[in-house]
Amino acid sequence: MRSFIDVSPDSHFSIQNLPFGIFSTQSDEILSARVGVAIGDQILDLTAISQLFEKHVPELGNPTLVFSQSSLNMFMSLGKPVWQATRKFLQSILSEDNPELRDSKELRANAFVSQHRAKMHLPVNIGHFTDFYASKEHATNCGVMLRGKDNALMPNWLHLPVGYHGRASSVVVSGTDLARPSGQRSPGKGQPPVFGPSVKLDIELEMAFFVGTGNKLGERIPIQQTKDHIFGMVLMNDWTRDIQAWEYAPLGPFLGKSFGTTISPWIVTLDALEPFLVDGPCQDPTPLPYLQEKGKTAYDINLEVKMKPRDCSTHKTLTRSNLKYMYWSICQQLAHHTVNGCNMGAGDLCGTGTISGPTEDARGSLLEITWNGEKEIDFGNGVKRMFVEDGDEVVLTGYCQGEGFKVGFG
Amino acid sequence: MRSFIDVSPDSHFSIQNLPFGIFSTQSDEILSARVGVAIGDQILDLTAISQLFEKHVPELGNPTLVFSQSSLNMFMSLGKPVWQATRKFLQSILSEDNPELRDSKELRANAFVSQHRAKMHLPVNIGHFTDFYASKEHATNCGVMLRGKDNALMPNWLHLPVGYHGRASSVVVSGTDLARPSGQRSPGKGQPPVFGPSVKLDIELEMAFFVGTGNKLGERIPIQQTKDHIFGMVLMNDWTRDIQAWEYAPLGPFLGKSFGTTISPWIVTLDALEPFLVDGPCQDPTPLPYLQEKGKTAYDINLEVKMKPRDCSTHKTLTRSNLKYMYWSICQQLAHHTVNGCNMGAGDLCGTGTISGPTEDARGSLLEITWNGEKEIDFGNGVKRMFVEDGDEVVLTGYCQGEGFKVGFG
Repeated sequence: MRSFIDVSPDSHFSIQNLPFGIFSTQSDEILSARVGVAIGDQILDLTAISQLFEKHVPELGNPTLVFSQSSLNMFMSLGKPVWQATRKFLQSILSEDNPELRDSKELRANAFVSQHRAKMHLPVNIGHFTDFYASKEHATNCGVMLRGKDNALMPNWLHLPVGYHGRASSVVVSGTDLARPSGQRSPGKGQPPVFGPSVKLDIELEMAFFVGTGNKLGERIPIQQTKDHIFGMVLMNDWTRDIQAWEYAPLGPFLGKSFGTTISPWIVTLDALEPFLVDGPCQDPTPLPYLQEKGKTAYDINLEVKMKPRDCSTHKTLTRSNLKYMYWSICQQLAHHTVNGCNMGAGDLCGTGTISGPTEDARGSLLEITWNGEKEIDFGNGVKRMFVEDGDEVVLTGYCQGEGFKVGFG
Repeated sequence: MRSFIDVSPDSHFSIQNLPFGIFSTQSDEILSARVGVAIGDQILDLTAISQLFEKHVPELGNPTLVFSQSSLNMFMSLGKPVWQATRKFLQSILSEDNPELRDSKELRANAFVSQHRAKMHLPVNIGHFTDFYASKEHATNCGVMLRGKDNALMPNWLHLPVGYHGRASSVVVSGTDLARPSGQRSPGKGQPPVFGPSVKLDIELEMAFFVGTGNKLGERIPIQQTKDHIFGMVLMNDWTRDIQAWEYAPLGPFLGKSFGTTISPWIVTLDALEPFLVDGPCQDPTPLPYLQEKGKTAYDINLEVKMKPRDCSTHKTLTRSNLKYMYWSICQQLAHHTVNGCNMGAGDLCGTGTISGPTEDARGSLLEITWNGEKEIDFGNGVKRMFVEDGDEVVLTGYCQGEGFKVGFG
């Protein structure tokens, strides 16, 4: 499948992808955020082709209304059959073989916006944010540092996807500057805490899925039906660290996390990711029946973390990981989340937790990479880092590799 | 101050109170939820006196729009000066000395709805829910049961108001039936978990405050300004227990809480509670500067828990506690919540955690009352309880006692 829009083989935004986002352009003093789909280095403005949707995807109801929203919530709430019909139509209308948009000068003049000229917004009005802790390698690394090798994993870890409620208000779109948080820290056992800016500011390489349609309070989403409810995925950097250490007993992370969580602007649909399903890790012990899944359960998504310290001009790769290493799948996460009857809704966001891999160069946080500050990262020219310093820049990327094309997150 | 509406001295809804809520009536096949204020056994329908607001409280802008909302979020977002002007006007217009509403047959015919005829709704579209753990007696009781007397309080507990992010979607208004949740439980150390309905379903006597106006990400609300941001308070029953025990290490409560949290329908404003401020508990060690507060910091609110088992016809009082026992004040909670720059907004809800008092008859959960199932509660006629069984009913009440009147939560 090829598009009449030029897409280089290295672009994350092939016609096989077509991720959804919210963008705006500043023109004629009008700045209005609306729904777009990325293709190559362009954005297809879905409000500009409303009449095509009316003709080809009647399930959308009022496409002008749906796509002129400043969030994807309304589109997501329409449900999987509508997401799929929309995606199928978009692949068709962008195809090199289809003249309907390709040969219409009038339509094309308004339909495409260069990504360089667009401002990307938070794609979803996030209702609730949950963060899991689903990578066995990450949980083990943290456990070894905290409790030693023999007690690395908590007794519950192999039986359920451990997760907690996060703060939705502080989730921001990639590119948003964040301020270093202040808070209490403990200088050592028995000493009173001190107050001040975080001194160990860390990153966490995560992915996250958006719930598109939810369930009622008291009902559950059986694991076989979870994919009908998941709209798509984004990259996530769950900024974190030292403030959490003192505050988190016994009720979990709080202010150590709620100062900022960054997500990528383009939501890659589950349908675009399906061709990249692979076998998940062996789960031993066998999960309880409500967590049992058949077939391929893991997504082969290459993940990378790069960092550019304030005084450096280039980025250095710190980590190459992959979502396929994750122990608890996103379907298991959603089935677990609702097994008590917890109600989910359009726009709820669920993070995977830090995705570390089996090797040292696949660790997803500076805590693990520096082994809690034991090994400095050398950026050359005397620039070294243990944790993130003011003015540093961190870049997360992720993509699936197809034959001659990529399905990526930007 | 007295109203021309008859208010018995035992009513929680005196003219000194005037709590805000969202109600609807079923008449002429129209059911529309809107803003009302409780007075005696009546509700003053604020949409019915829009023209009076236009005349007397121009700060409201468009009172018809503000009060025809199905949540209080828009009113709350207008800010404290508007809340106070509205409250002052309502006290005036309901006063026995003011003829404007009192003597207008036409206005009165539409303005008052009997509480018996009204259905109460969740008063706020809750953005985020945070739950604190601010009662020293409760934290101590739980700590003694879990870790023994010598390590009852965690090292951080006396230095900061421990809190965690809760689930906002499962907060429901009083009277909503809840289903017993299912989940994993551990039958004992080293044994694999089992799955099934919760066998220790508990209540937690809490109160909670609503944020009316918030702060931007990266900014904080200094403790001296917290009262400008808090709209009012409600009663809260944070249903909970055994599912939490197995899941919560190390990231805190999750599915053990997110199946349902009940709040009272009427929000009592902070202004109505101010006359009932009393000295708070002595705080030793002295909190860090950002948590230091002057003057009276605790509210003298009498709290009671009653329970009616399925097969009983009457309620038995289980607990009499008081919000004044709480160690960390609501202002300290809000100042702490934002000290890292976490952004709050209109409709955010913060629970106090279980409010236990210093005596055995002031314990705020069945876990504490039965001392984790050691002492059964006897309801007579052979009916006993350790925890909540299907069909049981729990009633929380709370009120401040004025001279000849009450300011209560219903």
